[in-house]
Amino acid sequence: MDKLFVIKIGGNIIDDDSKLSFFLREFASIAHPKILVHGGGILATQLAEKLQVPQQMVDGRRITDEETLRIVTMVYAGYINKKIVAQLQGAGCNAVGLTGADGNLIRSHKRIAAQDFGFVGDVDVVNAEWIKELVTSGATLVVAPVTHNGKGQLLNTNADTIAQELAKSLQDFFSVELVYSFEKEGVLADVADEQSVIRCLSKNDYVQLKETKTVHSGMIPKLDNAFAAIDSGVKAVTIGKAEKIIALINGLSGTRITNE
Amino acid sequence: MDKLFVIKIGGNIIDDDSKLSFFLREFASIAHPKILVHGGGILATQLAEKLQVPQQMVDGRRITDEETLRIVTMVYAGYINKKIVAQLQGAGCNAVGLTGADGNLIRSHKRIAAQDFGFVGDVDVVNAEWIKELVTSGATLVVAPVTHNGKGQLLNTNADTIAQELAKSLQDFFSVELVYSFEKEGVLADVADEQSVIRCLSKNDYVQLKETKTVHSGMIPKLDNAFAAIDSGVKAVTIGKAEKIIALINGLSGTRITNE
Repeated sequence: MDKLFVIKIGGNIIDDDSKLSFFLREFASIAHPKILVHGGGILATQLAEKLQVPQQMVDGRRITDEETLRIVTMVYAGYINKKIVAQLQGAGCNAVGLTGADGNLIRSHKRIAAQDFGFVGDVDVVNAEWIKELVTSGATLVVAPVTHNGKGQLLNTNADTIAQELAKSLQDFFSVELVYSFEKEGVLADVADEQSVIRCLSKNDYVQLKETKTVHSGMIPKLDNAFAAIDSGVKAVTIGKAEKIIALINGLSGTRITNE
Repeated sequence: MDKLFVIKIGGNIIDDDSKLSFFLREFASIAHPKILVHGGGILATQLAEKLQVPQQMVDGRRITDEETLRIVTMVYAGYINKKIVAQLQGAGCNAVGLTGADGNLIRSHKRIAAQDFGFVGDVDVVNAEWIKELVTSGATLVVAPVTHNGKGQLLNTNADTIAQELAKSLQDFFSVELVYSFEKEGVLADVADEQSVIRCLSKNDYVQLKETKTVHSGMIPKLDNAFAAIDSGVKAVTIGKAEKIIALINGLSGTRITNE
């Protein structure tokens, strides 16, 4: 089976034009089939501030009321997604920007929880067959973290989770590797020392890191997503610095999690 | 050859939630292959006002500086495009929302003119082959009026022109009909009387209407686009009220322009 990389880009890279451009040129040069999933950076928060739409966060997740969903859709599916697509096209990569609503790519349901998160979606099903068709025809999908419920409602959806769900669902067609790229070098043994990257992380290691509180709050959902992907059969998950994307996909940088 | 409708929706319909929903349900029920091209309505102007980005219009066309391009991309490619896609999906229509940058759908160049329009694109080439593939596989494209120059730059592009260029470029694969749907009943013999719809319009009629100043400034570029489409071989162009879309495609409402 062909190798396919599902690469999530997040954090400050999105907000930094020159870092983003560098990343996209490197990404475009990857010869294997690839899918890019992007987060939103700080731009949605900034736009909400300018438009005086108050933002409420619970456990690092945005409460998405109607106005916030509109902002998220404008910033993620509009500005960021199309900026990335245009730059990738400029770099010779045939990018196609999509949300979960387009072609029924990712259907989700409004989160059911004690805390009402508003228009936030948890993924139900990925249209893997259509993704396979697009990828096989040479397209590079650029996926914005907005999904739909199939009944006309858009839903704000965590980009790390989307990357994991895409990776999981594509295993019937590809040998899938998942990459979480962001501003840090990887999972750190000492959060203050960027050189203390843990090169290989097993599930047992992770349990220990959580017990000793070595991994901090922002990293835990990412690692939970990573191990969920591994548990479902994804070949490898790599976590590391976006600017080193080529080294990351070659296993030469970042933290690597495999099912071995 | 299969019939294909390229339908432009514009004007106030975009700004009116209940009219838009009604239109989309009617549109979804069209059994033929179809492509929807949408404008932006008043939302981009409203957002620019809220963000205090001054807007400059010359001959009804927006001067698109960098900030305005960002707003246009957010509103057209983000909010409006995805809202339409989600609603069509909810109505059982497999919609895929795209800009001209996605899959290199529409490449354009920055307009060269005495008046600098900023980041405004004039269409060079449509990726008709890819559109044919998507349409044949059962997708309904929803196209936002943003294109790219192939070098990384997005460009704001007139939606009427995009509809015309799509219609022209798809004639090798389909028997194409173009529909301009908006808030009026059609081309009116008396602009004050909505009942005075001209049912059939020839090129000679149009020349006369211009001479007698019966057609007003907003209608002229639309009709110029319509006749350009006819001249290039498009079977028919119909201009009329969005809520009557089914009657329009059946030739039972609006103004009809053919090459006969």
